[in-house]
Amino acid sequence: MPITLSQRFDRDIMSLRIIATGGTFDKHYFPLDGSLGFGASVLPEALARARLTEPCEFQSLMAIDSLDMQDHHRQQILAACKSAPESRIVIVHGTDTMCDTAAVLASATLGKTIVLTGAMVPYAIAGSDAMFNLGSAITAASLSAPGVWIVMHAQVFAWNAVRKNRAAGIFERSD
Amino acid sequence: MPITLSQRFDRDIMSLRIIATGGTFDKHYFPLDGSLGFGASVLPEALARARLTEPCEFQSLMAIDSLDMQDHHRQQILAACKSAPESRIVIVHGTDTMCDTAAVLASATLGKTIVLTGAMVPYAIAGSDAMFNLGSAITAASLSAPGVWIVMHAQVFAWNAVRKNRAAGIFERSD
Amino acid sequence: MPITLSQRFDRDIMSLRIIATGGTFDKHYFPLDGSLGFGASVLPEALARARLTEPCEFQSLMAIDSLDMQDHHRQQILAACKSAPESRIVIVHGTDTMCDTAAVLASATLGKTIVLTGAMVPYAIAGSDAMFNLGSAITAASLSAPGVWIVMHAQVFAWNAVRKNRAAGIFERSD
Amino acid sequence: MPITLSQRFDRDIMSLRIIATGGTFDKHYFPLDGSLGFGASVLPEALARARLTEPCEFQSLMAIDSLDMQDHHRQQILAACKSAPESRIVIVHGTDTMCDTAAVLASATLGKTIVLTGAMVPYAIAGSDAMFNLGSAITAASLSAPGVWIVMHAQVFAWNAVRKNRAAGIFERSD
Repeated sequence: MPITLSQRFDRDIMSLRIIATGGTFDKHYFPLDGSLGFGASVLPEALARARLTEPCEFQSLMAIDSLDMQDHHRQQILAACKSAPESRIVIVHGTDTMCDTAAVLASATLGKTIVLTGAMVPYAIAGSDAMFNLGSAITAASLSAPGVWIVMHAQVFAWNAVRKNRAAGIFERSD
Repeated sequence: MPITLSQRFDRDIMSLRIIATGGTFDKHYFPLDGSLGFGASVLPEALARARLTEPCEFQSLMAIDSLDMQDHHRQQILAACKSAPESRIVIVHGTDTMCDTAAVLASATLGKTIVLTGAMVPYAIAGSDAMFNLGSAITAASLSAPGVWIVMHAQVFAWNAVRKNRAAGIFERSD
Repeated sequence: MPITLSQRFDRDIMSLRIIATGGTFDKHYFPLDGSLGFGASVLPEALARARLTEPCEFQSLMAIDSLDMQDHHRQQILAACKSAPESRIVIVHGTDTMCDTAAVLASATLGKTIVLTGAMVPYAIAGSDAMFNLGSAITAASLSAPGVWIVMHAQVFAWNAVRKNRAAGIFERSD
Repeated sequence: MPITLSQRFDRDIMSLRIIATGGTFDKHYFPLDGSLGFGASVLPEALARARLTEPCEFQSLMAIDSLDMQDHHRQQILAACKSAPESRIVIVHGTDTMCDTAAVLASATLGKTIVLTGAMVPYAIAGSDAMFNLGSAITAASLSAPGVWIVMHAQVFAWNAVRKNRAAGIFERSD
């Protein structure tokens, strides 16, 4: 069962950081060449739209397609999680290598609740799942134990029990 | 801590029903008279957009502003929850009297996980929190113990520990 | 036939003013009480989205439902048209009494091309006709002779040959 | 000056065909591979949103990026214009080679009013100019003499007096 509200330290509830690392969620359309790429993160707008009442810190760490991530990018994300004063962190990430970053974070045993999420359709495009997944992820971060979790299409997966099924465009249990 | 995935029965995870009862979430604009009111529910479209992988049953029970709800409406919602085969239910509801319906459901001690959610801005209007709250609510329903919960702006409240602050347009703890 | 481009004075082409007066086009949703009303005009954002290459001056004159317009409001609009240095003006206006304002403007015989337009669905609401009508109106303003015109759903009406059919939510010829 | 309404034959006003040929206007996002491409045309939805009162015929002729157009594609478009019973035609087309198709159509001297338009941002993406340009184009088609015209960002260009400035993403006079 989830930890009831009376068991949480107030400071703990309020202790949430959202880290943007790019991914489909944050892609923009560039009219001059018709490409999809990165500009300013959409997360500030998305978070304002969510009408959050608890303070949350937003950090724009990088803006990269996760297929282009190399180990140093994942180490950067790990460093940001380590140095974050917050005990609950939501990382918006490309879906293609989300599991790889999750593994790096889990191996560090940070004792924080870290949730990775993303989107299959950019926030900026009609029919996006971005806001839905963001709501899922922030809620999962408030209810889940310390550890590393992947949250997509309303499902919460332990980091080591999930894979992306690229052909179907979904995440599924791998255990 | 949340129930870990290995402790859940697979059938249990898949056992989700979404019940639409109206509220701001589902309001439409009517051009001929400039009013906001109800038409077909937006939930089927919203759920498709969420790209859910687990089956969920959608039920369009009523379409009413919760300020117009009378006891018989709440009894109808209770009856729908009782007869639902699913053990996890998300009810999309107007925010103004969501706590009143929650109290009716809780008094029946159904042994199911029931989450009520809604929106401050209709799904059909720019800047809506509808998809964010729907993602929160479905995730909370999968992680929370049997009982009645209210989920708004990513926060999960026990039914008897929350009230709507109408002046601020938020839900806050009342204990 | 329209005046060919080579017959226009360059300064004339560039001489466009957009005047916001309110109307459904510019209505916003207010979450605290669920009402539709006015805030900052959407026109600057709409005009940026149109990717105009010719300079156009934007003037936020008033923000009022045209059912609430009194004669002094229409006189204000007339005064703005008179004092505008531009020879082509598009006025975004509520549809309900657009014809009344058009008559006031026409009686002044300003020698400018003045186009009134609006929307049946607010710019901020899914499925809006606002951008479509704005494009129609600006184009009609560039092609039409001096006079007062009403442009809705891609049709261009002389000010004295049109009425709003409120039951059907359309504009139709009245001659 | 434009042809006044009383000078038009009623049947003539109502004689409009919209031909979809693809282009950025009609591009969709494909989540499985993150690409932009073609599916069902957005034009039926866009036209419904425009709340047109005059009948217009919609024809989905092809769905192609205009950079991929070869001469046989343009001949197909010409054939469609020739066989159309309507005297006014709006062609939704990719912006990159819109001028090339315009030249092919103009050389055939069809005696119809043909307007080509498109979008710099797909209809399906936030901030699109698609609806604005569609409104412009349909209005230009109703006001312009027989001939071939290009309408983008509210400007009406004769087919032989315009080019696309690809670096700036705009259309400008070339005479």
